[in-house]
Amino acid sequence: MEENYRFERYRNLKRDAREGININPIQTGGRLTEAAKKALLEYGDGYSVCDYCEGNLFEIRKPDIKTFREDLARFVGADEVVFTHGAREAIYLVLSSILKKGDSIVVDENRHYTTDLAVEKCGLNKILVKNSGYPEFKIKVEDYIPAIEKYKPKAILLTYPDGEFGNLPDAKKLGKIAKEYGIPFIVNGAYSIGRMPVNMKELGADFIIGSGHKSMASSGPIGILGISARFEEKILQPSKTVKNKFCSILGCTVRGVPIITLMASFPEVVKRVSGWEEEVKKARYFCEKFEEMGNGKIRLLGEKPHNHDLMKFETPLFFEISKKHPYGREFLYRILKKHGIFGIKHGITKYLKISTYGLSYDEIDYVLSVFEKIIKGEV
Amino acid sequence: MEENYRFERYRNLKRDAREGININPIQTGGRLTEAAKKALLEYGDGYSVCDYCEGNLFEIRKPDIKTFREDLARFVGADEVVFTHGAREAIYLVLSSILKKGDSIVVDENRHYTTDLAVEKCGLNKILVKNSGYPEFKIKVEDYIPAIEKYKPKAILLTYPDGEFGNLPDAKKLGKIAKEYGIPFIVNGAYSIGRMPVNMKELGADFIIGSGHKSMASSGPIGILGISARFEEKILQPSKTVKNKFCSILGCTVRGVPIITLMASFPEVVKRVSGWEEEVKKARYFCEKFEEMGNGKIRLLGEKPHNHDLMKFETPLFFEISKKHPYGREFLYRILKKHGIFGIKHGITKYLKISTYGLSYDEIDYVLSVFEKIIKGEV
Repeated sequence: MEENYRFERYRNLKRDAREGININPIQTGGRLTEAAKKALLEYGDGYSVCDYCEGNLFEIRKPDIKTFREDLARFVGADEVVFTHGAREAIYLVLSSILKKGDSIVVDENRHYTTDLAVEKCGLNKILVKNSGYPEFKIKVEDYIPAIEKYKPKAILLTYPDGEFGNLPDAKKLGKIAKEYGIPFIVNGAYSIGRMPVNMKELGADFIIGSGHKSMASSGPIGILGISARFEEKILQPSKTVKNKFCSILGCTVRGVPIITLMASFPEVVKRVSGWEEEVKKARYFCEKFEEMGNGKIRLLGEKPHNHDLMKFETPLFFEISKKHPYGREFLYRILKKHGIFGIKHGITKYLKISTYGLSYDEIDYVLSVFEKIIKGEV
Repeated sequence: MEENYRFERYRNLKRDAREGININPIQTGGRLTEAAKKALLEYGDGYSVCDYCEGNLFEIRKPDIKTFREDLARFVGADEVVFTHGAREAIYLVLSSILKKGDSIVVDENRHYTTDLAVEKCGLNKILVKNSGYPEFKIKVEDYIPAIEKYKPKAILLTYPDGEFGNLPDAKKLGKIAKEYGIPFIVNGAYSIGRMPVNMKELGADFIIGSGHKSMASSGPIGILGISARFEEKILQPSKTVKNKFCSILGCTVRGVPIITLMASFPEVVKRVSGWEEEVKKARYFCEKFEEMGNGKIRLLGEKPHNHDLMKFETPLFFEISKKHPYGREFLYRILKKHGIFGIKHGITKYLKISTYGLSYDEIDYVLSVFEKIIKGEV
């Protein structure tokens, strides 16, 4: 067939951003470790994870998913960990397991959009705790109290940190509030687990959610859901019709290569979270220099000083340049790419989301120097 | 920490079945092509699929998922294709989108266990169409008619072929029956799409489901769901709260490396389905020789002559040997493994599930020769 000839192009998929410096917050924490790259090829074939399966993915001994699951649970301070197809699927699994249609849930205004989708899919009544607005957009966890008293929610959820500003609200305090009112407390840690130390029990949460591809040096898609023992039966509902299978998760979830990369990267991930303070320092360093060169026209949004590598800047300076630049609003993306810097959204100039996670100071200085040259019109 | 030292073992995950001959039906169709292996490393990093995303995975132009989706839809004879986390997730997506709690669905007795889980999770009333029993276990699609007339189901589902016996019921005839009664018809083709030619429209189905890791030379987990246009809105429900996002699938599904391998293997998969007749011949060749050496104590179950590479044998011969063998019931698994043959379940001797998919005649002869030596007690 002539058509088949056209398909040939799928054989050679190349990613131009593979080399170079990536500053995209959704990608900096998901880059594979060397161990994970090796594991990818080792377990790339479909269903190879299941070589020694005896009916339950979570119990497989080779590769040792069973022990890994225990290690991971300890790592996030949970009693059990459930592997899901991603953080959003973990949120949905919790909401659909412990809430009923029409129930209320209180969530932070800075939540990820998939929280809204999960809430909508479950038919829940969503109550928003507002942030403090421009420029810091902070969530004050005390603001959950009036919402709890008014709406009697069946769960509360906090995004820790959020993916828009990288703000870290006082999750521990909210944990105490949740306990006081006896309400299940869900922490969405897609941008924290695997980057910074987080412990479900210390936060007083009943559920903690992480993302392998966002923050745990793993191929996507994979999420982890840490739970406290009392919710185990609700989340992993045994099927009434099929022996030894969980109904809520349709038997098994991540039966493939993402779980292998999560596992292979785990030793490195455990190590790297202990270097979190240094990551925060680097982010603040970048922020300071970047704002400086903007001369009032580059400004960090979100908490200041910032406590996370995920940063959002308002950058009227770049918007002004774009209006005169021969590349138009593509100038920033295109020039950065030419200099081996990836992760700025194509066509975006008014706001930039940048992460310095895992970069060296040399790399940060290089990124800053390219931005400076762009501002000065030298490149 | 001492603990961290213990984690080191996760760095070096090795798969012993990576080399050698694999005869496990759930694995023979999922082995990666060379193109897919390259693509794995190219797009292994978390969220790298999303480099050029503008908000919807299915519309990404680089890698060209958008065109791939169209090509794939044409390949399976559907109007649209939805990527899911696996075949079971596709079944669940259909059932939860087009049926309501308490609705009836008619399914074949040979269905995969995940059909039952999806039915249970949706709270549906399941009506079974019985197979013909030992030894062929055939599904006669006319038997759907009385069930349809009695229970007025809101959907019917056929497993084509089933994963237990590899039987191929007359899906086309069932398509006509479904049309006559005006009932949505779901075909679970997890063991057909990517192995043999299948066309949703030709079968008269409204939904067709495939598995990347089972039959499309892809890393897991990934499924495809082909749908007819009239169901598009129901399956891909636009969110009422989040702009440009699908609520039913929580925004995006397979945002990671499985979709890349599916794409990279696609040209090869398209080619290989045209060689299906040869695959059936090979399976029959194996079956004939294997039964012969069993001298009445090895017998194919399921359709005979067989029409698929997935074969289940009853093997009282091996069970007898196991009772006297020094390795006990592990003898078969262990001796095969020693000879580089993988995929027989450890400890199983009474029944064997074997697939010859993708093997050369030389490899098949080698496998047969090892079985023969085992029977003769020479190894």
